[in-house]
Amino acid sequence: MEGKKDGFLAGERRGLKIEGFKFGNSPLEFTKEAVQGKEIFMTTSNGTRAIENALSADNLYIACYLNISAISEKLLESEKDVVILCAGTDDEFSLDDSLCAGMIIKKMSEKIKLEINDLGLSLKKIADLTSDIKEILSESKHYSYLKSIGYENDLEYCTTVDAFSITPFYKNGKIKLPLK
Amino acid sequence: MEGKKDGFLAGERRGLKIEGFKFGNSPLEFTKEAVQGKEIFMTTSNGTRAIENALSADNLYIACYLNISAISEKLLESEKDVVILCAGTDDEFSLDDSLCAGMIIKKMSEKIKLEINDLGLSLKKIADLTSDIKEILSESKHYSYLKSIGYENDLEYCTTVDAFSITPFYKNGKIKLPLK
Repeated sequence: MEGKKDGFLAGERRGLKIEGFKFGNSPLEFTKEAVQGKEIFMTTSNGTRAIENALSADNLYIACYLNISAISEKLLESEKDVVILCAGTDDEFSLDDSLCAGMIIKKMSEKIKLEINDLGLSLKKIADLTSDIKEILSESKHYSYLKSIGYENDLEYCTTVDAFSITPFYKNGKIKLPLK
Repeated sequence: MEGKKDGFLAGERRGLKIEGFKFGNSPLEFTKEAVQGKEIFMTTSNGTRAIENALSADNLYIACYLNISAISEKLLESEKDVVILCAGTDDEFSLDDSLCAGMIIKKMSEKIKLEINDLGLSLKKIADLTSDIKEILSESKHYSYLKSIGYENDLEYCTTVDAFSITPFYKNGKIKLPLK
């Protein structure tokens, strides 16, 4: 049994903080000082819905540019079939998360021979041929939108590949880190 | 009023000719001698269903590698918004038609500045970076399958870019060529 923790609300709609919530969706707000030991109740337009849609998975990991290598390693270790569920933007295909998916596939395929469907193959091709993430994303809808509402520093941060080696997972309603 | 024409059945399921039909789906069977002046009743696993799903379009053109430039030109002339509907394979994303879509977008964007969604942008990127269609498709599911059942000559034919300058269109249940 866990003890009762302090908590707060965080989340966004159309990229903007929800009224009355402590934080929006900007990762730069979630500093160690702000979150350590706290329980965060979070809702986002695409990400948290994607998690809900993936609840039937045996293991559900949270991936982004910041932990591509760590997640790829974890998926390879599991030796299970992998579905990469891209959250998308407003229920549409979004290049930001699709390119990230392609980079995970690329990373995994450097280690073993993968059997990939055509969409995965296409995303891997884009990843193979991308040298500058920010350049390719600059034309995409969601990236341009976030930039237009002032989140340039967040975009810089979010497109930093492998800044962390953590593999957050979702279980029983919570995103946690594996115990060391 | 059109006079009554000779006709025959053509179509495939899982790439193979349907029993009792004159032709399957192999374009190499459809020679001038075989089809001129005839009405062909056709059913395919993906293509004819895609047409049914696009009936609400003002104009419905049939595109493939063989007429990319002609179709792009036609779409630009129309000055309308364009939806490129990829037929896919067994209701899944398929690289063969997606790459073709990317090449149409690429061709159109050489003439005017397009507003493209992220999926279109991704397919255009793949097209931008593809120098050898057959090489990239060789890893894809549908291409490999057709090759495995003996359609190598068809694949060679179907991936010939701009062999024709025709722009077939669908109207009132029939695919026709524009009058000269």
